Amino acid sequence: MDKIQLRGELEELYADYAACLDDGELERWPELFTEQCRYEIIPRENFDRGLPLAVMRCESKAMLADRVAALRRSSVYGPRALRHLVSGLRILAVEGDCIRAQASYAVLQTLPDEHTTVFNAGCYLDRVVRDNGVLKFQERLCVYDSVLVPGSQVIPI
Amino acid sequence: MDKIQLRGELEELYADYAACLDDGELERWPELFTEQCRYEIIPRENFDRGLPLAVMRCESKAMLADRVAALRRSSVYGPRALRHLVSGLRILAVEGDCIRAQASYAVLQTLPDEHTTVFNAGCYLDRVVRDNGVLKFQERLCVYDSVLVPGSQVIPI
Amino acid sequence: MDKIQLRGELEELYADYAACLDDGELERWPELFTEQCRYEIIPRENFDRGLPLAVMRCESKAMLADRVAALRRSSVYGPRALRHLVSGLRILAVEGDCIRAQASYAVLQTLPDEHTTVFNAGCYLDRVVRDNGVLKFQERLCVYDSVLVPGSQVIPI
Repeated sequence: MDKIQLRGELEELYADYAACLDDGELERWPELFTEQCRYEIIPRENFDRGLPLAVMRCESKAMLADRVAALRRSSVYGPRALRHLVSGLRILAVEGDCIRAQASYAVLQTLPDEHTTVFNAGCYLDRVVRDNGVLKFQERLCVYDSVLVPGSQVIPI
Repeated sequence: MDKIQLRGELEELYADYAACLDDGELERWPELFTEQCRYEIIPRENFDRGLPLAVMRCESKAMLADRVAALRRSSVYGPRALRHLVSGLRILAVEGDCIRAQASYAVLQTLPDEHTTVFNAGCYLDRVVRDNGVLKFQERLCVYDSVLVPGSQVIPI
Repeated sequence: MDKIQLRGELEELYADYAACLDDGELERWPELFTEQCRYEIIPRENFDRGLPLAVMRCESKAMLADRVAALRRSSVYGPRALRHLVSGLRILAVEGDCIRAQASYAVLQTLPDEHTTVFNAGCYLDRVVRDNGVLKFQERLCVYDSVLVPGSQVIPI
């Protein structure tokens, strides 16, 4: 398949992912993953050392949906506005149906009556597959540079 | 029309828009809109509640040009450097000649001898039409997450 | 050549450039330039006035490699995580084999146990040429809006 065409399709998937989290369409977020999948949020230091300590780990779409339900029950998600900026998409390999790609991201956060700040920045390391013609995440690792505020419930990045 | 091709054309329009505001080519900014148009800067809270309270509203290219002239007379625009980052373009619908699209943005601001900070972040909600072969904004709503500094003159986002 | 295709190829080059600097693959960074090249980091104020005072200037791939070696000997690069966000690519002209393009960038920085902040923002002004079929930078000017922290060694942007 044409690489520039594939780039465009991946950009669409990444934009859709960000919109789910930023526009409060949290229930649509797990739909962007395959049934069996891997979603992790990992501090860069652990990732670089090969340590398997993630602050969030989900291994199926059902686990992602559980996480969404828990977030809806808590009040952690509502009062802040999030804004994902994604940049620097690279297609690393296309192996049959599976695409390995990465991109940099920053999540900006605006708390009520406060200035907008950088909440989290890092890179996405992805495996994307075509599932009935639609691109979905089989694996998304969010390897973050930032300090995550201790004590707060981890939200999807 | 091919969707990936259209994505590329929209990316060009968005980049041109950002460059007008960042490179001080303010007079070229209204040229990216159709004669009759709608440009609004709206706090997210108002937008979500359906309240029509915008901090800036223009309904024609002439009004946009008036706004530029007013900014040039004031000293609000000059001493700060602005930098738009736009990400997550989504084509929501193509209805005949009209394209509905959205994207996330962050505007960084650098005041003299100060560190760069996030001035404003939010999303663009757009209607774009082809006008003599050139894509132009028929409508751009800037729905912002951030606190706008009270008292300062509102600048285009 | 098709402009949307060229946009995609440039996006790939820019993403590769950012990844070199963010993922610590510093030695690969000079490889993205032609043998004779021009790389400068210039404060916006100087650039706007036509002053030739750059905080970093390299005129060949060899000089870029020297700079990388010096950074590796110092400890300035290691302890911080950098994250480039690039947006608003514009192809300004295609003159034979040479493409003039520009884009906005922000470099986020995370120091150990500190929050992520905007380290530097500005625009890239580029001349890109096709070298044995591969796009390379013949010239990259990084014109920055931000205050660079005085006293620290200048790192590639």
